[in-house]
This record gives sequence, C-alpha cells and structure tokens, in this order.
Amino acid sequence: MTERIFRYLREQQPETPCLVVDLDVVENNFRRMRELLPAAHIFYAVKANPAAQILSRLSNLGSKFDTASRGEIELVQATGVSMDRVSFGNTIKKEKDIAWAYQQGVRLFAFDSEAELQKLVRVAPGARVFCRVLVDCGGAEWPLSKKFGCAPEMAKDLLRKAKDWGLDPYGISFHVGSQQTDLEQWDKALAQVSQMFFALAEEGVDLRMVNLGGGFPARYRAEVNPIEAYCEAVTRALVRHFGNRMPEVIIEPGRSMVGDAGVIQSEVVLVSRKAANDRKRWVYLDIGKFSGLAETMGESIKYRLRTGRDGTRVGPVVLAGPTCDSADILYEKTEYKLPLSLKPGDKVEILATGAYTTTYSSVAFNGFAPLKAICI
Amino acid sequence: MTERIFRYLREQQPETPCLVVDLDVVENNFRRMRELLPAAHIFYAVKANPAAQILSRLSNLGSKFDTASRGEIELVQATGVSMDRVSFGNTIKKEKDIAWAYQQGVRLFAFDSEAELQKLVRVAPGARVFCRVLVDCGGAEWPLSKKFGCAPEMAKDLLRKAKDWGLDPYGISFHVGSQQTDLEQWDKALAQVSQMFFALAEEGVDLRMVNLGGGFPARYRAEVNPIEAYCEAVTRALVRHFGNRMPEVIIEPGRSMVGDAGVIQSEVVLVSRKAANDRKRWVYLDIGKFSGLAETMGESIKYRLRTGRDGTRVGPVVLAGPTCDSADILYEKTEYKLPLSLKPGDKVEILATGAYTTTYSSVAFNGFAPLKAICI
Repeated sequence: MTERIFRYLREQQPETPCLVVDLDVVENNFRRMRELLPAAHIFYAVKANPAAQILSRLSNLGSKFDTASRGEIELVQATGVSMDRVSFGNTIKKEKDIAWAYQQGVRLFAFDSEAELQKLVRVAPGARVFCRVLVDCGGAEWPLSKKFGCAPEMAKDLLRKAKDWGLDPYGISFHVGSQQTDLEQWDKALAQVSQMFFALAEEGVDLRMVNLGGGFPARYRAEVNPIEAYCEAVTRALVRHFGNRMPEVIIEPGRSMVGDAGVIQSEVVLVSRKAANDRKRWVYLDIGKFSGLAETMGESIKYRLRTGRDGTRVGPVVLAGPTCDSADILYEKTEYKLPLSLKPGDKVEILATGAYTTTYSSVAFNGFAPLKAICI
Repeated sequence: MTERIFRYLREQQPETPCLVVDLDVVENNFRRMRELLPAAHIFYAVKANPAAQILSRLSNLGSKFDTASRGEIELVQATGVSMDRVSFGNTIKKEKDIAWAYQQGVRLFAFDSEAELQKLVRVAPGARVFCRVLVDCGGAEWPLSKKFGCAPEMAKDLLRKAKDWGLDPYGISFHVGSQQTDLEQWDKALAQVSQMFFALAEEGVDLRMVNLGGGFPARYRAEVNPIEAYCEAVTRALVRHFGNRMPEVIIEPGRSMVGDAGVIQSEVVLVSRKAANDRKRWVYLDIGKFSGLAETMGESIKYRLRTGRDGTRVGPVVLAGPTCDSADILYEKTEYKLPLSLKPGDKVEILATGAYTTTYSSVAFNGFAPLKAICI
C-alpha cells in the first residue's frame, strides 16, 4: 500500500467496498518496463483495468493498447488515442466488430483459426495480422487453457494463407499464462517461435514481429521474481533464439502494470463460528467473488490482506463474501489467519488488487453494487 | 422454449446475447406452486432474477419476497410491495442495512450467529427472526457449502437468546441445496428441525415457522422429478415430523419460479480446431462465464442448447465464451455435441436460463456489455 493510498483512505473514508488506484505507481511500472525492455512496444492489456484515468496516464506516456472487444476500443478512443496504437488482440471476434474497428483505423489483429482469418480477409484487407500459437504454460498461477492459439503446424499454414489472401502476415504471438512464475517458459516458447520464423522465411513468408503476450506477475502472497528478472529472461531468450535477426517485439502487460497500483478497502460484515467449539472463524467481507474478487475462483490468486489490528494475536479463518451464494467463498482451503479481535465494521485492505477486479464484478448479483474504482 | 419466446425471437431478432423471459410461465409456476403447497407462504427469491416485470407480476399474484440486500429490498419497494411481505433473508447483513430495512417496515430477518443476533437486537427490536441451521445437502447440483447456517445446538442456544433479548424467535430455516435432486433430503432435514422445535417448546421458546428455503429444481440437461413430486415429499415430511402441531411454512423458490421461463439467445462467433486433425471443435459463443453463465463454473449447471441446425449430423465440441480469459470456458469435460455445419453467425439458444444469469453478468469484463433481459 502506497503512502498516497494510505492517506487517501484515512482522510476520505470512502464507502466500502472500493478500489483505490495510485496512478503514480502505474506510471512507474510503465517507465520501468520501458527501461528494462527498450526495444519492445508496450501494449497495455486494457482488460486488466480500463479506468479512463489509467488509459489516459498510459497514453500520455506513449503506451499502445491491447484490446479485447469493440467496447474496449471505444474506451481507448475516448481518451484520444489514435487507432494505429491499438491492437485488436482477441482471436474471437464478430465480423461486424472487425469491420467497425478497421473503419476506425485499427490495422493490427490477432487470429488463431482459418475461420477468423477469412473474416479478416473479408473486412480488414491488407491489415497486419498475427497468429497465436499454443505453448506449454506450466508454472502459471492463473494457467491458460487451450482456449487460445493453435498448433505450430496449423499456425504456419495459416500465416502462408494470410499472405496468399492479401493480408500482411506480421508475426506470432503466444502467452505463457498470467502470473507466470517460471522464467524458463519464455525460453521454451521462443525456441519454438523462432523455428517457425525461419521455416516460413525460407518459403518467402517474412514475419517481422513476436508478441510475447503478458504473464509478468504482480506480487500476491507468494514471493515472485522481480520484474527485472523477467525482462532479463525474455531478452536472453530472444537473443539466444533470434541472434542478429531480432524481430520487433510486442508485450501486453496488464497485471504487472496495474496490479500493485491498487488496494481494495472492504469492511467486515460478520465474524462467526458454526458451532461453539469451532476452531475456525468465518469472516464475511462486504466484497466477494461476484463483486470483484473473481480471481479467487478455485483459490487461484491469493491476495495479501491488511487490517487495523495487525500485530495482535491471530487465528485461522474462512474468508467469504456477502452474498447468499454459497460459492461466494474467497479462501477456505488456503490457510488465512486474521486477528482474533476482528469484528464487524473493521476495515480490511486487500492488496495488489488493481488488475482484474472492477470489470469482473457482477452488475448486481444479490442486489450488491459493482466495485467502484477511484484513481488518485 | 415457449411458443411466445420462439415467436418473439423470430419476429424481433433482438441483438445477442439476450435473455427473453416469458412472464406467463412465471405466473404458471407461481400458481402451480401455490396449488401444490397451499399452506405455504411463497417468498420469491429475488436474487434469481430481479427484473421489475417479474417482481411486479409476482406481486400481483400475492407473492412475498425473500431479499438478500438493501439493493434488492429497494427493487421490491419500487414495485409498490408493502414491507410486511418482505423477508431480509441474508444471514450476513451490515447493521446499517438492517436499521434501514427496519425503518422501511421490514420485520422478518434471518440470522445464524450471535454477532448477527446482536445487531438485530440493537436496530430491529421486536422483529421476527429465524435461525438458519446447517443440514446435510448431498444430491444438489449446485451444493451449498457451510457458508450459511450453524449447528443445531448453537441454533437452539441463539433462539433462546433471541427471546431473552426482546426479539420474536419465529422459527428455523434450512436449505437443502439449489437444484436439489434427492427428495429424501427434505425428510432428513425436517426430522432434525422438528426435534429442535419440540425441545425448545418444552423450555417455553415457541417457534411457529419452518422456512424450507429453495432447492426446487429447474430442468437442465438431466431429467428431474416433476415439481409435484417435490411438493409431495415436502408435505409428507412435514406431516411425518410435525403431525398435528404443524407450523407455518415458508418457501423461497427462485430457480423453480423463473428458470424455465427464460431463454438466452446467443450467436456463434467462431468455430475452430486447434490442429488440423483435432476431433473436437471449439465453439465460441458471444456469451460466457463472465457475461451471464456463471453457473457453468466447475461445469455445475449443464444447460440444454438448441440451434437452427438441430437434426443434422453432430460432433463433439468444447463450448467457450468470447473473452480473452482462458477460464471463460462453459463445457470442456462435459460432453456436448453440436451440428457439424454450425458456423459463425448462427444462433444458439440456451434453454431454462431465466434464473441466476443476468445479475451474475460482469459490468464490462473485456469490454463486453452485461446480459440484457427482455420480459414478454
């Protein structure tokens, strides 16, 4: 928690639950990333947190933007960003949304299937397109499924077709999984990708770009390698596999740009036991899985907590949200301990919650309002 | 899918994704429930679907309302329902929300812990309160955790205290789990509850009400017992365990009231394979786990699907949503088969989606708008 957020919470006492984002942290994260990977184009993953002030701050710093939908492109547009700084990075797009984006000036599109390529041929002629390939992604705390990407052989075939069909086969993207903690994953993936580059170049299909996706972590409960280590690993892998035929590089950080910039302040609604002799207490907060903390699904992301009673004696708890949904439990298997003196009305801060919180919150599940974001 | 919904979709061609709710089905469900359990007070579980037209239709029929939050009480209020028809059924409430509800005239509250009881004593003096007990709930497709309720011994202790502290210890509630398929669960639970009733009566704590919660199912992929069988089982269990000392009965149906009244129409965005020889296709819809189909979490609820190509040759698919989130997969382990000729732009109807869909949808995850409901 930054001094600025601490002061804001103390002085303003905003209604809970709320997310407070320190824009200076976002700016520092961007500057550091640019310093560590000077050759890379940074496309901020808008889905991580699309708050207008975040987009605007990043835009002023020269960031580009990775978008998932027409809705996100419109948000970027609203901050005055020109469309040549936008990538339509979702491989699953309605044809009418591609056509709309193309009309607005977007010229960079992701795909991973022939059907998607055909849409692009029809409504985005000449656009730069990149194919997402499936890579192994062990080690990620929020692992990716096979939902995105295709097998390398299919990717090569599709990039050949892209050229034949009048598109610009710009490059290849992959994603090692969000909150990736194993630095070797980038090396393994780039080994595959460089082979595809050189094989296609021999056939006259000249790719020029590698999109490394995201996957740089934010710090939750477990220690993670510093961002420097990640950037070094990526640079080393690029040099090892591409040598002096270095391509353009795109990265799409989301979590690592805004995760640690935000703190959710919540309030304890209830502390109870299910039987008189229960060892574990149940602590119910005014925020849960359906109002912003969706990434606790399967207890994947383990947030750090802070209370005003830290330092006093603690005991084990189950942590849950305020809805009548019994699945609205944040941590039951994961051991969390909170002060024994915790009581209704106490504030609990949930740290490093700047990414993937506000937009995940439901419109009104159980009649609870969605999580508000305050950028300072 | 009712004839009215079918006609509406064909004639109006609403933008997808959207939920269309047939209010006549809601009305029929209410009337049938009242016929089958004439002695029970029906409190519609607003969280299942709080659309104003549903609340209004049910209100005209004489329904009462089970609410989870101030937000839901306000929705009910907005339809002109008097507050003596409202239960504040969440056991996790902020004290200020209890105070507000009490000021509005709400006099019926749930609790399951001493801390909650103390809030009620402070800001809802004299109110009727009921204690939720933990019952075994095997057999439910959307099983409840231990999040709500307390052990029977603790419940008895709290009901005694409620009386001592000036509240009206009205009764006991339990919930056998949503989409409960085992009819014997109500019998097991009512055996426990009746014992508590009689034990407390001997001490002079006269409970008068049993709240059976919800748990009546909607029909998804698997066949379920007809609602008649559920009501019979409940009635039989009540008679068996209470005999001629029958208490007032409250039921809180949500899913069984609106589930089969609604159909979501979605559109196929993409059909693809991950490699040329993949047996399974990936079918991506314009609705997913974060835009209304949250109950596919863990593939719990298995919706029935309908396409315009039904009856033609089918093949296995993985069904996924449109976001860049790799967890946004509806069915991967569950076998679903869809027509081999299915292609982008085709409509897919997701049946019996009137409950627990719209309010679960995220405000704007990945920039996608929340699910709209159209009541006809």
